[in-house]
Amino acid sequence: MVYVTRRETFNAAHKLHRNDWSDAKNIEIFGACANPNWHGHNYVLFVTVKAKTETGTGFVMNLKTLSSIVRKNIIDIVDHKNLNLDVPFMKDILPSAENVAIAFWKVLEPHIAKEGCKLHSIRLQETENNSVEYFGE
Amino acid sequence: MVYVTRRETFNAAHKLHRNDWSDAKNIEIFGACANPNWHGHNYVLFVTVKAKTETGTGFVMNLKTLSSIVRKNIIDIVDHKNLNLDVPFMKDILPSAENVAIAFWKVLEPHIAKEGCKLHSIRLQETENNSVEYFGE
Amino acid sequence: MVYVTRRETFNAAHKLHRNDWSDAKNIEIFGACANPNWHGHNYVLFVTVKAKTETGTGFVMNLKTLSSIVRKNIIDIVDHKNLNLDVPFMKDILPSAENVAIAFWKVLEPHIAKEGCKLHSIRLQETENNSVEYFGE
Amino acid sequence: MVYVTRRETFNAAHKLHRNDWSDAKNIEIFGACANPNWHGHNYVLFVTVKAKTETGTGFVMNLKTLSSIVRKNIIDIVDHKNLNLDVPFMKDILPSAENVAIAFWKVLEPHIAKEGCKLHSIRLQETENNSVEYFGE
Amino acid sequence: MVYVTRRETFNAAHKLHRNDWSDAKNIEIFGACANPNWHGHNYVLFVTVKAKTETGTGFVMNLKTLSSIVRKNIIDIVDHKNLNLDVPFMKDILPSAENVAIAFWKVLEPHIAKEGCKLHSIRLQETENNSVEYFGE
Amino acid sequence: MVYVTRRETFNAAHKLHRNDWSDAKNIEIFGACANPNWHGHNYVLFVTVKAKTETGTGFVMNLKTLSSIVRKNIIDIVDHKNLNLDVPFMKDILPSAENVAIAFWKVLEPHIAKEGCKLHSIRLQETENNSVEYFGE
Repeated sequence: MVYVTRRETFNAAHKLHRNDWSDAKNIEIFGACANPNWHGHNYVLFVTVKAKTETGTGFVMNLKTLSSIVRKNIIDIVDHKNLNLDVPFMKDILPSAENVAIAFWKVLEPHIAKEGCKLHSIRLQETENNSVEYFGE
Repeated sequence: MVYVTRRETFNAAHKLHRNDWSDAKNIEIFGACANPNWHGHNYVLFVTVKAKTETGTGFVMNLKTLSSIVRKNIIDIVDHKNLNLDVPFMKDILPSAENVAIAFWKVLEPHIAKEGCKLHSIRLQETENNSVEYFGE
Repeated sequence: MVYVTRRETFNAAHKLHRNDWSDAKNIEIFGACANPNWHGHNYVLFVTVKAKTETGTGFVMNLKTLSSIVRKNIIDIVDHKNLNLDVPFMKDILPSAENVAIAFWKVLEPHIAKEGCKLHSIRLQETENNSVEYFGE
Repeated sequence: MVYVTRRETFNAAHKLHRNDWSDAKNIEIFGACANPNWHGHNYVLFVTVKAKTETGTGFVMNLKTLSSIVRKNIIDIVDHKNLNLDVPFMKDILPSAENVAIAFWKVLEPHIAKEGCKLHSIRLQETENNSVEYFGE
Repeated sequence: MVYVTRRETFNAAHKLHRNDWSDAKNIEIFGACANPNWHGHNYVLFVTVKAKTETGTGFVMNLKTLSSIVRKNIIDIVDHKNLNLDVPFMKDILPSAENVAIAFWKVLEPHIAKEGCKLHSIRLQETENNSVEYFGE
Repeated sequence: MVYVTRRETFNAAHKLHRNDWSDAKNIEIFGACANPNWHGHNYVLFVTVKAKTETGTGFVMNLKTLSSIVRKNIIDIVDHKNLNLDVPFMKDILPSAENVAIAFWKVLEPHIAKEGCKLHSIRLQETENNSVEYFGE
């Protein structure tokens, strides 16, 4: 069993804000992240899959295939977008880094399985100081 | 003469969009950067000042002073903000990295001069692949 | 269950030296790290906590809370300090990276538990080539 | 139990190419990595070992010892070399990052065991976007 | 006048070897870099152009245009290639980092000029410890 | 004329403290950097030399030669040392990053000149946020 990690990047706007809370409560809980006019990040996404290496190629999974899956299903949908407004699979989900990572898992897991591999983790780095990781359960 | 560089970071939303252009022309020229609902970045700012070292301290300029100037006059105004909507000194300025760097220079230059140093350059990194630098002229 | 990691940095002096060993033996075992007049590092600390995301906020734990806990209980005590001489919770402990990580775990674990989360790991990077990680047992 | 990681780097040429496949099939499966005249990488290798800290030194394993083992048995053999042609322990092995990591494990594991530690993982970063990790089974 | 820098990466094999020198002299002068079977690097290329910002867009030069020029004329020719054997514009040039940077300048300069900008520098990072920069004269 | 930069690293302790000032004044001016028991850094040193490339080798200067000069004359003297107490060429010099860079210039310049090259700059990074650069005048 070998673990293979592909790194991809995207730039997006978001805010942490609940419509069912007052502005004051949003600011109290989310601080600057609740800025009404949004802010944004250069997100760095690490997708790790695992499998036995396929003996013909020495690969767990062709990294070009993995990159294509991540780009087509995630990056093309979220890059240069607003995570609150523009991303169908984030509809009605507060775009905390945790929730974004969980949403990415749900999108990617079936595509990875179809390739005969197992998705191991989604790591999402929001800033150089803050990151989250989700292992599917 | 020694050059001293302070690095500070901020996260902000922006879009490249001119109201006097059609949406089609904005997309043609600015591409994904014109996304109506914004996108954003983890900006990295490098402020370089130069002077003779002051013999008492061995400093060009106390880096805590430099950091305070940059934080009070730039970071506190732009961090977790929208560069098109929320920043008084960017009003009516298209927030390309180039224009943001020039605007930061105008804000910082008098504060640095007041400390007896010369502002040498403003370098602004928008993504790991794109950066700009401005030397004041 | 999502894992959230906060990165904090501090600068400190230390040496690896046992008073019950001769200088020769200290040098033999610890090499340059035993330099009597100390040396130092820019330490990078990664604190990882895990929990179910709290559905109201989408957070495992508010990263501002996590950062405050780490800064108040660790960074404010060790930054710009001597790990052998200045840090009460390191008294009589040889400040190898391993021992520093274990000591940080003991300090932080109860504060994380009080927030309803579980401390998962302490990773401490001493140089770009050397790092250690401790999972509490 | 503490985990200690040593980072080492090396530069090498390789290609992904099977002699029992046609050139067309090699290109189809391996793409640019099959370039007949080779290409190369600045590989970054992370070797993680685990053990209880030895109370005399506070070390899991003296990092100078670990570094010596990795340099003598791996880096000196692969640095500034061709992974397909010059490395005895890679003979007849397609040098995908996965296979290189597995081969490094086999070389290093007995040396680490001899020091009373357990090899935990071999992580090999081929580019800033692609890396693999192997845990020995 | 603002300076804009675009970063691109490529992986290539090379060796430092002169056919008119004996193998012994090649090894004496170039050391491990003369390995007959090649070695390779993840090269990082920084292309800096300068101009007044164009007032309509706020750009020195559309970075997508700059990236396209660099990719079409450099990256597509050198990525996953052998710098000694596969690159027409490096024919009969010893591929030291210095010579590669000078060759890249000659290729890129007319394309940048055609866009109304001035090429300022080519910086080429061969390893994390070694880099060169060329300003055209 | 090509510019070549070599990166080297060292770890050292220091403090900013003048014996002819009271402790109170030292703390007022230098803050935490005046901690009596020292603190320390992982310093990163960038030495840039310039020359025409020598046509036989394609080098400005053999980087192994440059690295040897920097290691023998700087790194071996300052690594794992105390910059206030252990370094002969820093005697009676307050070890601010600025003063360290100037001292390194004085040490290295004649050695570089002897190789037929010109020392262009000494850049010293003290932390990820603070760096200084000196060009010899």
